[in-house]
Amino acid sequence: MSHNSFGHLFRVTTFGESHGPALGCVVDGCPPLLPVNVAEIQAYLDKRKPGQSKFTTQRREADEVKILSGTMEHDGVLVTTGTPIAMLIENTDQRSKDYSEIEAKYRPGHADYTYEAKYGLRDHRGGGRSSARETAARVAAGAIARKVIPGVSIRAALVQMGEIEMDRSRWDWNAVDENPFFCPDRDAAKEMETYLDGIRKSGSSIGAVIEVVADGVPAGWGAPIYGKLDADIAAAFMSINAVKGVEIGDGMAVARLTGEQNADEMRMGNDGKPVFLANHAGGILGGISTGQPVVARFAVKPTSSILTPRKSIDRAGNDVEVSTKGRHDPCVGIRAVPIGEAMMACVLADHYLRHRGQIG
Amino acid sequence: MSHNSFGHLFRVTTFGESHGPALGCVVDGCPPLLPVNVAEIQAYLDKRKPGQSKFTTQRREADEVKILSGTMEHDGVLVTTGTPIAMLIENTDQRSKDYSEIEAKYRPGHADYTYEAKYGLRDHRGGGRSSARETAARVAAGAIARKVIPGVSIRAALVQMGEIEMDRSRWDWNAVDENPFFCPDRDAAKEMETYLDGIRKSGSSIGAVIEVVADGVPAGWGAPIYGKLDADIAAAFMSINAVKGVEIGDGMAVARLTGEQNADEMRMGNDGKPVFLANHAGGILGGISTGQPVVARFAVKPTSSILTPRKSIDRAGNDVEVSTKGRHDPCVGIRAVPIGEAMMACVLADHYLRHRGQIG
Amino acid sequence: MSHNSFGHLFRVTTFGESHGPALGCVVDGCPPLLPVNVAEIQAYLDKRKPGQSKFTTQRREADEVKILSGTMEHDGVLVTTGTPIAMLIENTDQRSKDYSEIEAKYRPGHADYTYEAKYGLRDHRGGGRSSARETAARVAAGAIARKVIPGVSIRAALVQMGEIEMDRSRWDWNAVDENPFFCPDRDAAKEMETYLDGIRKSGSSIGAVIEVVADGVPAGWGAPIYGKLDADIAAAFMSINAVKGVEIGDGMAVARLTGEQNADEMRMGNDGKPVFLANHAGGILGGISTGQPVVARFAVKPTSSILTPRKSIDRAGNDVEVSTKGRHDPCVGIRAVPIGEAMMACVLADHYLRHRGQIG
Amino acid sequence: MSHNSFGHLFRVTTFGESHGPALGCVVDGCPPLLPVNVAEIQAYLDKRKPGQSKFTTQRREADEVKILSGTMEHDGVLVTTGTPIAMLIENTDQRSKDYSEIEAKYRPGHADYTYEAKYGLRDHRGGGRSSARETAARVAAGAIARKVIPGVSIRAALVQMGEIEMDRSRWDWNAVDENPFFCPDRDAAKEMETYLDGIRKSGSSIGAVIEVVADGVPAGWGAPIYGKLDADIAAAFMSINAVKGVEIGDGMAVARLTGEQNADEMRMGNDGKPVFLANHAGGILGGISTGQPVVARFAVKPTSSILTPRKSIDRAGNDVEVSTKGRHDPCVGIRAVPIGEAMMACVLADHYLRHRGQIG
Repeated sequence: MSHNSFGHLFRVTTFGESHGPALGCVVDGCPPLLPVNVAEIQAYLDKRKPGQSKFTTQRREADEVKILSGTMEHDGVLVTTGTPIAMLIENTDQRSKDYSEIEAKYRPGHADYTYEAKYGLRDHRGGGRSSARETAARVAAGAIARKVIPGVSIRAALVQMGEIEMDRSRWDWNAVDENPFFCPDRDAAKEMETYLDGIRKSGSSIGAVIEVVADGVPAGWGAPIYGKLDADIAAAFMSINAVKGVEIGDGMAVARLTGEQNADEMRMGNDGKPVFLANHAGGILGGISTGQPVVARFAVKPTSSILTPRKSIDRAGNDVEVSTKGRHDPCVGIRAVPIGEAMMACVLADHYLRHRGQIG
Repeated sequence: MSHNSFGHLFRVTTFGESHGPALGCVVDGCPPLLPVNVAEIQAYLDKRKPGQSKFTTQRREADEVKILSGTMEHDGVLVTTGTPIAMLIENTDQRSKDYSEIEAKYRPGHADYTYEAKYGLRDHRGGGRSSARETAARVAAGAIARKVIPGVSIRAALVQMGEIEMDRSRWDWNAVDENPFFCPDRDAAKEMETYLDGIRKSGSSIGAVIEVVADGVPAGWGAPIYGKLDADIAAAFMSINAVKGVEIGDGMAVARLTGEQNADEMRMGNDGKPVFLANHAGGILGGISTGQPVVARFAVKPTSSILTPRKSIDRAGNDVEVSTKGRHDPCVGIRAVPIGEAMMACVLADHYLRHRGQIG
Repeated sequence: MSHNSFGHLFRVTTFGESHGPALGCVVDGCPPLLPVNVAEIQAYLDKRKPGQSKFTTQRREADEVKILSGTMEHDGVLVTTGTPIAMLIENTDQRSKDYSEIEAKYRPGHADYTYEAKYGLRDHRGGGRSSARETAARVAAGAIARKVIPGVSIRAALVQMGEIEMDRSRWDWNAVDENPFFCPDRDAAKEMETYLDGIRKSGSSIGAVIEVVADGVPAGWGAPIYGKLDADIAAAFMSINAVKGVEIGDGMAVARLTGEQNADEMRMGNDGKPVFLANHAGGILGGISTGQPVVARFAVKPTSSILTPRKSIDRAGNDVEVSTKGRHDPCVGIRAVPIGEAMMACVLADHYLRHRGQIG
Repeated sequence: MSHNSFGHLFRVTTFGESHGPALGCVVDGCPPLLPVNVAEIQAYLDKRKPGQSKFTTQRREADEVKILSGTMEHDGVLVTTGTPIAMLIENTDQRSKDYSEIEAKYRPGHADYTYEAKYGLRDHRGGGRSSARETAARVAAGAIARKVIPGVSIRAALVQMGEIEMDRSRWDWNAVDENPFFCPDRDAAKEMETYLDGIRKSGSSIGAVIEVVADGVPAGWGAPIYGKLDADIAAAFMSINAVKGVEIGDGMAVARLTGEQNADEMRMGNDGKPVFLANHAGGILGGISTGQPVVARFAVKPTSSILTPRKSIDRAGNDVEVSTKGRHDPCVGIRAVPIGEAMMACVLADHYLRHRGQIG
């Protein structure tokens, strides 16, 4: 058991606080001889990095990744060796003084109170371990995970921000990288720009829904009961900061479906492979992949750090008002897009290795 | 790693198929000297048992639990000894002939195709390992788990069936045991009766949403990152047959909230304890319990086994029509109510022991 | 984490006490479509079974194994399905009254005192969970494990009993099944007969050393650091009742070797495969198999239950004398031979699947 | 499952190669509010550090530890926060050119061949991951582990080197730090000096036995079957580089004991606590601590890197001679003394937390 690890055969352990010297991860169990491209890992980190637009926190972090172990040059290419891959990201733009005011106050909606209730102390600087900075390490691990499952393509998009839901008929993956919200609907993205600007200026924040799609997953990954592919996706997504809901395929909406609507019918395709006529199941049945795209969503709550004063208490038991003046994301869901991809990649890499272990 | 276990310190391993001689579980890590009441375990099993009303499958199973190990008489009371508690439930009403027709056909929406894609064979009788009968073992384990956390009360209810959503202003826990749907809203339960009768008679099925509430959980259970209390609840619920969505607190709806709405404000209570003025967080912040009720929901899809013929394929690659004539639940969500309680109990028992291990 | 499980991908959980209704195991992660022969499993159990000669306890147990799950008929053969295999062995010859005298007394050298120190109570009947009866479940699991690694042959032998050490120049595997001690040296076996008869008649007991050899393990199984093949063998053997020492290859004697003596030299064989000129390493270097036979030993202490009164205390804190009159083995090491084989089989099956998972 | 982690509640993951930029560890599950003294951690590292005398490798490594996470100043003291503690040790004295000659050759007795058989490549520089440098990270983790179990004192000593066995009647813990061998017998230490000097000068190497003693462990730590305290000690010691044998208490010698000799008798002490009259069991019965000192030993084989040419093969399948000229330890067992202490500390910290989790 490990509080800070996930995965079994492809196992990621992360460490580090928002305002310590560094954060990072150790990826254990990665197969050997996979090519590692540091620039590629960096590109994923840059996508998650703060300060990319006015819609994310203005903290300036290079988020530069350094590989400490588990790789070597082999026939002129940097490859994995099969031993643990440790990756380090140094913190460079910590302004701890920004947080002195909240040292003894619990920010409502934040983990301040619960960390202190559990541990008897908390690292108040930037949220310490509860900071979303920890997810940089996950993104680095996700970049390695993608190498483990080369036939699988994993993409994510922001499909809802507050009251603005995208129109699925306008879904265009190419649009995702054209707007600062990773939204696949260009019209919705435009709306979001004005909408979020208003929220940002008022010092408020807003929630979002992210959808992650994995194409190319063959039928058969996963396992019954607690080794279910969807159970692991659910845990992985729910482990991301601020996530409160997880859906596979039709998700919560299955409650309204009849058996006829829900049963994804099958036919034999011309290539002799089964074809599904629908994908309400999101590519997973009985905890095992069907061969269809794996489709999952998660909802991210609004950033708790807002300008409007909220009622709270302090460590001494006094009633106080809390208003957060640090640098924060008006919609933390935006930066959750690459994180969702990374978590999906890690879960699939793990399940691929587990499947290969049991079945061969 | 174990495909069929959950939990770390309070660890449950289940085994058994729908139509084998027996199913059961092994509960490992249970503290010693806890009283065990077989009649009480049986009562939870009876709640989940098929054939309790016309709204659940007419398969007749006694679902009688036998304890094989891990308990002994001590000062006149049956107590746990700290060693693994094995519990056995024999299958008595297997009618395997009912399933011969679907031996080579894949039922749409069911795990038939994925099990066979993974393992190269499947136990087609009653769904084999993918049958909801496996959950009887979970309910037995959950009854033990409740003994580990005596101050905590765990209750669940069906809050939505198809288009019928309960009215939360009419929530009455006493109503739950008065209707065959475990619905806390008496008026909605009445509607459900007519509604589900229609579905049942037409050989169709319908989805549902279950809400589980744990009162009495102190602040501090859970842990950061992958040991998060909510991540484990998400995995536990998603591991239940037919579940496609999991929510904590406001769940997917947090996407629509502003930071002001979402931040559960706090004040000091008269008893010197913190009081939360709202519970959008569902009792969990940063993966750690807040001391408020833990509130979680999951959506169950409609039973895949329906009378209406659906397009599918068989093992030989032929296009076929599948219509299931076995005994099935028109709304499998109903029997998921005690299962949801059991999974919550297991997760909380595990987190309590983990917390006690790290913090003391 | 599980107190009563071992293995990761091939994972065995055992349960049951000496004098409860039954004991058994759940084998999780076994690959599908492996043939299962109940008579074969039974044959391994019979080898371990008490009452086979006057040199083992006279308790009469059928030790009949029943498979509850995880197998089905497929093309006329009973095969594994990939789901958990639960196996049950009922206790039939429990004479609990034999143990009433030691209910409140701690037998020196036995786990009585430590179980009670830990759990606050203990099942005194036949040692409860600490009884060697638990190992019957391991032997059943080992029989399944052998099917996972068909090219590997695992054999064990008793190589020392008290002062009698076998002569390795007389090692003959055929001799093992010809004497009640599983000794590969016929002359030593004859000596042991007289020797152990004396010990048995005097109500005493004696220790032993068991050697386990696995032929056919290819190079490459195992992993660095804590996934080391030898670390897992060490844990597996040390987990057997009464074991106090474990050796790989030359074992404790390596302390006396020089680097020249210890380095197993290599040459290319005529078949283009590396040939080792010695096997001081016992087939494992750096935690990974070399392709040579894996050779490991363990020492079993004498049975603690002896007729000679020994000084001890009771639960109330009184000084007492303890003399055990129940039915016991004069040399519990004899029955440890099939157990050692079973543990080696489980470790190798697990490492084979782990290797296949990471490397393919 | 993790190849490079050990422990469950107190869980250590190590990473790093001999000649990469750095090595280190992540300690997960450490209780909060324990004082951390970097100088103290450094002192343990210095004890293990190469180049301390002419009897260890002349590689010059500062082995300076940096804490990256999991600690903070609290009331003026550096304490643990309950989050993962990452520690980093940079490699500074790598002379990779020393190893170019053995890039394609397999050193007999070393892990060269097995790593390459497993992974298809190996980091040949300094043994890569199989280098004993990895153990520096374990020593750092062990220093944290000691803080978790403050009442327990863990000490180790070298009790045998080649043919020289210490005289136990001369055991003096104070002597251990007075000689470069950590030997508790001053006379034996003097002999070892001449003995090892001869071995060193001839370019040879020699094995050793280390004994680790933990005083102050209360009765009750550990658990049955696979959670046995001794099984975990066995795995921990066997996971140390070059270890081939592990003993608890009397170890392999129990094979020669009778039941009368082996049964550690008990009497009530004047303070109302049980007193054991002997400790053949090494402080562990049934996998659970007895309250006596926990005593364990392990044998370390001689360093494989020796000057005398040995027969081997190369990657291309040619017969070659191998002679290692890099800087090496003539008796690697010496530096295993602090490593043995560290592993014992980690196992005990883990079992303490596990015990507290299950029992309270």
